[in-house]
Amino acid sequence: MTAGRLEIALPAWLDGLVDWERRYEGDDERMRLAVTLARENVSRGAGGPFGAAIFDAAQGRLVAAGVNSVTRLGNSVLHAEIVAIMLAQHRVASFTLAAPGLARHELVTSCEPCAMCLGATLWSGVRRLVCGASRDDALALGFDEGPVFAESYAYLRSRGVEVRQGVLRAEAAAVLEAYRAQGGPIYNG
Amino acid sequence: MTAGRLEIALPAWLDGLVDWERRYEGDDERMRLAVTLARENVSRGAGGPFGAAIFDAAQGRLVAAGVNSVTRLGNSVLHAEIVAIMLAQHRVASFTLAAPGLARHELVTSCEPCAMCLGATLWSGVRRLVCGASRDDALALGFDEGPVFAESYAYLRSRGVEVRQGVLRAEAAAVLEAYRAQGGPIYNG
Repeated sequence: MTAGRLEIALPAWLDGLVDWERRYEGDDERMRLAVTLARENVSRGAGGPFGAAIFDAAQGRLVAAGVNSVTRLGNSVLHAEIVAIMLAQHRVASFTLAAPGLARHELVTSCEPCAMCLGATLWSGVRRLVCGASRDDALALGFDEGPVFAESYAYLRSRGVEVRQGVLRAEAAAVLEAYRAQGGPIYNG
Repeated sequence: MTAGRLEIALPAWLDGLVDWERRYEGDDERMRLAVTLARENVSRGAGGPFGAAIFDAAQGRLVAAGVNSVTRLGNSVLHAEIVAIMLAQHRVASFTLAAPGLARHELVTSCEPCAMCLGATLWSGVRRLVCGASRDDALALGFDEGPVFAESYAYLRSRGVEVRQGVLRAEAAAVLEAYRAQGGPIYNG
């Protein structure tokens, strides 16, 4: 037995969905990418109906993308937001996306974060959080979202993280519904 | 640019501190391991003053160990609890430690979990959470712990996770103090 080591990798098909050179302009374009990632994750049977992406807020350049990888990689931590945060920090080679000299980053997620991901957002160094589907949309599907309260968002804001909810909510919620219709597993119900 | 891939590995010295064959009996022995991991992480300058371990609750067999790896691996998600959860699930090859046929697992952490780790505990499938130092001990050091409220613990308990706090608190808090004395970085203050 040795201490342990593991690898986290995105599915190869994800590269076909993103354009690393493009500028994603505004919340709708950025959310559309997150929702596309979520939808493709469902249609390929790769995992839960959630996608996320981290952008250079001013330039709209994509820094990292994530899809829910809980079942694919056998790891309950690997929600879409966590995957995107880890890969973004790996790319900029810093444990915080708010390091001196870095651009201002924002996290765009196809669904409001669970308790774990809300906490992770705080530590990530992103300055803005943009959400698509709501906690209630996820709960209606049978997913638990954990202890997230109004005070949790207030805490984020008090630490300088701007929050916008409900961007392309209907499109994002439709992916949740597609997952349900397909009989996808509720891995944390 | 490709989608992304990263590796998470524990420091090699960790293997010298743990005994994979031994039975760790009771909360004190198990917490002593978590605190030892935290202390060694500090004294080697490898990261924040936090350690965690996951045990087969009945047998006391160590399933996975974790140390805070935020600065060492440049990844804000890699708190000790997260590392231990990921490695435990990797070892049992399941995204939940509560999968049918598995032993009952518990997470022993040298400090009460931050908001992210509290949420991760819920998704991990551990049935019990044992904490050493308190949130206030960490806050006194300058670490932020995020939006954790009394309701957060109530939520965990309502989902069947037993919680015990304050085990070897003084020993665990002494590691925090050693970190402060050494001038260790507060990476999320």
